[in-house]
Amino acid sequence: KNMSTYAPKGCMAAPFTPFTKDGKDVDYSKFKSYADHLQKLKIPHLFVNGTTGEGLSMTMEERIKTAELWMQQKDKFESILLHIGTGNLKDSIQLASHAESIGVDGIACIAPSFFRANNEESVVSYMKEVADAAPNTPFYLYDFNIMTNVYISVSRFFDLAKDEIKTLRGVKHSSPQLPSLFTGMREHRGYQFMMGTDDQYLAALSLGSEAIVTSAFMAPYFNKIIEAFNSGDLEAARNAQEACQKVVNVRSKYGTGPQSFAVGKSMMPMLDLDLGPVRLPLVSLTSDLAEKLQSELKAVNFFDWVKV
Amino acid sequence: KNMSTYAPKGCMAAPFTPFTKDGKDVDYSKFKSYADHLQKLKIPHLFVNGTTGEGLSMTMEERIKTAELWMQQKDKFESILLHIGTGNLKDSIQLASHAESIGVDGIACIAPSFFRANNEESVVSYMKEVADAAPNTPFYLYDFNIMTNVYISVSRFFDLAKDEIKTLRGVKHSSPQLPSLFTGMREHRGYQFMMGTDDQYLAALSLGSEAIVTSAFMAPYFNKIIEAFNSGDLEAARNAQEACQKVVNVRSKYGTGPQSFAVGKSMMPMLDLDLGPVRLPLVSLTSDLAEKLQSELKAVNFFDWVKV
Amino acid sequence: KNMSTYAPKGCMAAPFTPFTKDGKDVDYSKFKSYADHLQKLKIPHLFVNGTTGEGLSMTMEERIKTAELWMQQKDKFESILLHIGTGNLKDSIQLASHAESIGVDGIACIAPSFFRANNEESVVSYMKEVADAAPNTPFYLYDFNIMTNVYISVSRFFDLAKDEIKTLRGVKHSSPQLPSLFTGMREHRGYQFMMGTDDQYLAALSLGSEAIVTSAFMAPYFNKIIEAFNSGDLEAARNAQEACQKVVNVRSKYGTGPQSFAVGKSMMPMLDLDLGPVRLPLVSLTSDLAEKLQSELKAVNFFDWVKV
Amino acid sequence: KNMSTYAPKGCMAAPFTPFTKDGKDVDYSKFKSYADHLQKLKIPHLFVNGTTGEGLSMTMEERIKTAELWMQQKDKFESILLHIGTGNLKDSIQLASHAESIGVDGIACIAPSFFRANNEESVVSYMKEVADAAPNTPFYLYDFNIMTNVYISVSRFFDLAKDEIKTLRGVKHSSPQLPSLFTGMREHRGYQFMMGTDDQYLAALSLGSEAIVTSAFMAPYFNKIIEAFNSGDLEAARNAQEACQKVVNVRSKYGTGPQSFAVGKSMMPMLDLDLGPVRLPLVSLTSDLAEKLQSELKAVNFFDWVKV
Repeated sequence: KNMSTYAPKGCMAAPFTPFTKDGKDVDYSKFKSYADHLQKLKIPHLFVNGTTGEGLSMTMEERIKTAELWMQQKDKFESILLHIGTGNLKDSIQLASHAESIGVDGIACIAPSFFRANNEESVVSYMKEVADAAPNTPFYLYDFNIMTNVYISVSRFFDLAKDEIKTLRGVKHSSPQLPSLFTGMREHRGYQFMMGTDDQYLAALSLGSEAIVTSAFMAPYFNKIIEAFNSGDLEAARNAQEACQKVVNVRSKYGTGPQSFAVGKSMMPMLDLDLGPVRLPLVSLTSDLAEKLQSELKAVNFFDWVKV
Repeated sequence: KNMSTYAPKGCMAAPFTPFTKDGKDVDYSKFKSYADHLQKLKIPHLFVNGTTGEGLSMTMEERIKTAELWMQQKDKFESILLHIGTGNLKDSIQLASHAESIGVDGIACIAPSFFRANNEESVVSYMKEVADAAPNTPFYLYDFNIMTNVYISVSRFFDLAKDEIKTLRGVKHSSPQLPSLFTGMREHRGYQFMMGTDDQYLAALSLGSEAIVTSAFMAPYFNKIIEAFNSGDLEAARNAQEACQKVVNVRSKYGTGPQSFAVGKSMMPMLDLDLGPVRLPLVSLTSDLAEKLQSELKAVNFFDWVKV
Repeated sequence: KNMSTYAPKGCMAAPFTPFTKDGKDVDYSKFKSYADHLQKLKIPHLFVNGTTGEGLSMTMEERIKTAELWMQQKDKFESILLHIGTGNLKDSIQLASHAESIGVDGIACIAPSFFRANNEESVVSYMKEVADAAPNTPFYLYDFNIMTNVYISVSRFFDLAKDEIKTLRGVKHSSPQLPSLFTGMREHRGYQFMMGTDDQYLAALSLGSEAIVTSAFMAPYFNKIIEAFNSGDLEAARNAQEACQKVVNVRSKYGTGPQSFAVGKSMMPMLDLDLGPVRLPLVSLTSDLAEKLQSELKAVNFFDWVKV
Repeated sequence: KNMSTYAPKGCMAAPFTPFTKDGKDVDYSKFKSYADHLQKLKIPHLFVNGTTGEGLSMTMEERIKTAELWMQQKDKFESILLHIGTGNLKDSIQLASHAESIGVDGIACIAPSFFRANNEESVVSYMKEVADAAPNTPFYLYDFNIMTNVYISVSRFFDLAKDEIKTLRGVKHSSPQLPSLFTGMREHRGYQFMMGTDDQYLAALSLGSEAIVTSAFMAPYFNKIIEAFNSGDLEAARNAQEACQKVVNVRSKYGTGPQSFAVGKSMMPMLDLDLGPVRLPLVSLTSDLAEKLQSELKAVNFFDWVKV
């Protein structure tokens, strides 16, 4: 693997993890059809076992098996970036080591949200231990401060981490602060700053971000934004971002914060691909609410956008 | 005045209010020279008595006198938007009425930060009373949630305010959330969404924002960003935004939150225009710190940018 | 006045400010009957123009006039502590000076909530300027961090303020953190730490706080808590605190944060003393909601408690 | 086991988990000597694998083994309450089931901090699944909102949980809001509300809380507070709480929030019982800082208090 050149561009989709009806087990039978679906959506890259995938609600065994099953679908994608962050260092080290053994293209790690690091130094120390367990695999920080409540300067993280973490390649910047993304990008050329918030992608593009990580079904919006932006048609890009924003605004009526991921998963059956419920403490939408959501999504043309 | 067409474009500068050495009085002798300086910086519009101007640290008498003195300098600018927000409704009503009497181009009003409104409805009710006191003057909401801790949906404010506030023209959106700015702009065409955060202007431009309100001395950066962006030279726009970001990052080492305005004012003597101290509870930089700040600003070429 | 011995004990009531029906003016006709009502409730001390009194929603002229009218009722109370905090230093200095001229027993000052101080030093500097304008009047810090968003260490404030503010006598500690109150009390003997949150008074008593500042109509609860606690009947004190807590819990259903003061004022007509509406951005309860509130208050025996 | 009568009273100590020097493994050799030490401190109850014990930084295997080793020391204590909360439901279910199999006196469970529940209903659903895996073991909610950022009404949790969770016995209330503790206690007689914040114990006692969960070495302070309070010597109780507060204040200079647990563990070698480092992202104090801490602790007589 050429560490210094791994740099996924464009749309990276974060798949949900298919669960059985009672939510108790991963539904291993769904990976192939889901991968086919994603391929049809023209999604080049996957971000596996992240927040959308409810990685942190899965057991170690499930994390490992799920990673392996996605790797079996690898030929349908350009690359797979595996999230190996958990609530504790030892588990993440084990997942990092496993990730390297199965040949993922890169790993990403989030900081724990319970024992929250209180400065960049301790995040670097933590991430170094994780990254060192996969010495031949590109490493990404997964920064998502509104979920973890760990608020650090991403740019300062890179200042400190560059020498410490040999495999450091970039960050999945799901924290919404664009000046943090921008400062990082400009001060740390050569590293990759991927945007992780759906409703700020055009803005991030204008600042120079090369990749966006998003719920898989939003890919058509971002492919359009990228295409329009790159061809110089700013108004078309704004229209696509507005269409995306409308979906975000509709979704936010049905759940915000962590619960927004439950809303997202509730949209899969509307795309004829039931991936099961979310796991507690997230709560799947009732069928009544799901129906209302569907009709609101229809009103903003969501289903036309994501038709494949 | 043609209410429906007032729409300042490009750079709107928020001047500091000149205070006497002990901070106890407005230094009325400085307005002319300061206005000349601003004119040289090619600043088309002024936002008077806002946060940068420490409007909320001034007495009613000072607010009124300062507004009048800026109006005497009016011929040097395309327009003057006057902030008439205070901590209480009656004072703001009085200032709104005075504003109309002196012929400002528009007024803006912030929500109180002590008795914080807890929904959009009460903000609309409050602003309606203020706007009605200046029935022939374009009205702008001044939304700055990180200062007031009043968090509302700006878009919903417009939904409700459109019919209630006849003079409604737009918002000075100093709250940093871009999706709020963008949703507002797209859902409420015809109203004006002015961005008020220095470090997100390129992003706001890409989304379609037509005006930025900023500390006066940052105008050269924004004039450059606008020019480069409009001519399609995105990399030049990014470089200018990066240069601006560097200034923001340097400043933030010397004071964040409300204190950042004290840091800004401490920069004026470096531009050969001493506008006096800030008022408590803000604290002016010690001369030692101001010296360090100056040398850091020099290192990021600030003084080359703002040379007039 | 003997500065070093002013130390109101027991219940200090914060009266609402009577407004006319449209909320536009202070209703100066109500002060006498309201004072009589308060006297019947056996309230020894008044805290005038504070948060309950919507001091920060009043103009300077109204603040001054209201202070004077309460002073005309002075013979019905042991002491009157006047809040002279505003959004800006100059206004507070003027109010402090006026307060001394009319002979109040003490003054209290809150820190501005818009230009928020970012450390204890700047709060001390600010308060010193205010206190110095009333050099013969006992001075209290009014600390209420959940309203102002100014979070300081009260104990550290006293460390720094002791030598600076000659008239310093204590703090109205409306911030809810008891360890802050307790640390302050123990480290700064001789100063007075008055508790300002209804639902923690028994706890504050057990820690040694000698006075509580509360909405006037809650006085009977606190008189009972104090009496039971002092006579060693802890279970009776708990029962009274529980009765108080029930009122707090009912009220919180109708409005929290700043809006809770609107709920309180809506309770006055239920006590046959209509003091008018609250001022925007607070919103008075609709008559429907007020009726529901009344019936919930009845269910927790509020009207039996406050019968005079 | 008599579910309805398990109700530990007085001091419940939360032991640290001994780690090896490099922090990589649990140091299983230390449990006996540590248990002896705790016994000498006259600690009746243990709260194992909680926040102090860094339970959430341990692997499943370590959690299980540690629980078993503490159970081997069970004869030195009146009861052992085992924390089985993790970041995800399946792991907590497994730990609950194991807990019952080894005969702990009770289990407690915290809500996940990454996928944060957004209402009481989902916390109840989550906890029910966990509790049902140990159908013969008393169950406690572990509410610690400043660590998890899950802010619920504890009282409403009990309203909803009473019928759902057959084994519900109480709450370890480490959230600092006393009105929440008090409302819960009064509205839900028969359940147990244990206080979990060192610096509010006297206050909680006055409100009627029967048990406190604390870092083990603070037990002498609480034993004294309880004894003095029960014998009616309030001033002695305040003095002991003040002595405790001084330790809290000293500790807070060396680390706040999650890092405060690192400071606590750094105090163990000062008591001649080195339990190893904390785990990343917490950071053990440098020896320099530990020395300074020790001398500050000496100055507030900590070592006299905890001498056994």
